[in-house]
Amino acid sequence: MVTAPDRAPKQDRSRATRQRLLAAAVACLAERGWAGSTVSAVAERAGVSRGAAQHHFPTREDLFTAAVEYVAEERCQALRALFPEGAAGDRRAVVAALVEGCTGPLFRAALHLWMAASAEEQLRGRVTELEARVGRETHRVAVELLGVDESRPGVRETVQGLLDMARGLGLARLLTDDTARRERVVEQWAGVIEGVLG
Amino acid sequence: MVTAPDRAPKQDRSRATRQRLLAAAVACLAERGWAGSTVSAVAERAGVSRGAAQHHFPTREDLFTAAVEYVAEERCQALRALFPEGAAGDRRAVVAALVEGCTGPLFRAALHLWMAASAEEQLRGRVTELEARVGRETHRVAVELLGVDESRPGVRETVQGLLDMARGLGLARLLTDDTARRERVVEQWAGVIEGVLG
Repeated sequence: MVTAPDRAPKQDRSRATRQRLLAAAVACLAERGWAGSTVSAVAERAGVSRGAAQHHFPTREDLFTAAVEYVAEERCQALRALFPEGAAGDRRAVVAALVEGCTGPLFRAALHLWMAASAEEQLRGRVTELEARVGRETHRVAVELLGVDESRPGVRETVQGLLDMARGLGLARLLTDDTARRERVVEQWAGVIEGVLG
Repeated sequence: MVTAPDRAPKQDRSRATRQRLLAAAVACLAERGWAGSTVSAVAERAGVSRGAAQHHFPTREDLFTAAVEYVAEERCQALRALFPEGAAGDRRAVVAALVEGCTGPLFRAALHLWMAASAEEQLRGRVTELEARVGRETHRVAVELLGVDESRPGVRETVQGLLDMARGLGLARLLTDDTARRERVVEQWAGVIEGVLG
């Protein structure tokens, strides 16, 4: 039997292993796509045995949906931390940060998972649910940081359209680095949104 | 040796076979994704022998890039035909049509191809080039139908942002039918864009 002082470090190690696996899963999915993303590939990347990986995540679906959810939550926290003053902050900077959030490996990984789910029956239910949760949370953060009142007509749809645009800009970043173009679009649209939200 | 009267119907048949293959390739890619899309699967779907399919399209990459390009061109022509009065037409209807253009099988097929290209080296160059061509042509049609002058500051970026939003809305349509939400976003943003473009 292990005593309490032994158990704590063991739990810490287990948590650290889990987080290494989640981070490796997102990186793997972003780089190789769904077809190239297996539990073995992720275990190897994380420096964890396949058995340990399967102890944490019994199936491939478990691993990759958990990974995208975990990293999406982290991103929402990071966004909130970027603007500790919340609604009192600079709205243009918030728009830019929301768009930049769609240009990195997390967005790329999520896209691969959405696309795989759209073509594979056994993934669809779980990923659809995950997408809805991540979408709601992102919307909540956007409303909070933009400091807007969604009970005013048009505000909710304005924020939704902005997030759709952010995802479209992320999509355009997939194959080519169009950062200069994206920055000009964000500059123009941040001004438009500022005008609409008043 | 075939005589001229025989050759013409033969060319027609060959063109018809080619078009059947292109349409089947887009449908296949939209439904099954890149992993499930092979020349054989498309030949079967089109009711064409594998040999005939390979005569038209020697490689899988040839077939699917040609298919996405062909259908994208058709969509641009269809968009122009929807608004024969061009710039004199209803801008809100143009915005709605540009967005709806991103919700069907062509957009889904193109997305699968872009995602595969982002993870597969041998596809990347061709698809990047194709994406740039399709993007430029879509932008040209949008400018024409919206009847705007791109030399005015901010107009180019407004149109680009609108097309990015259209793609983001298409992405949201992948896993769930969010038509009611999309229509509210389009209604709101069509008004905003009308205000910006003046």
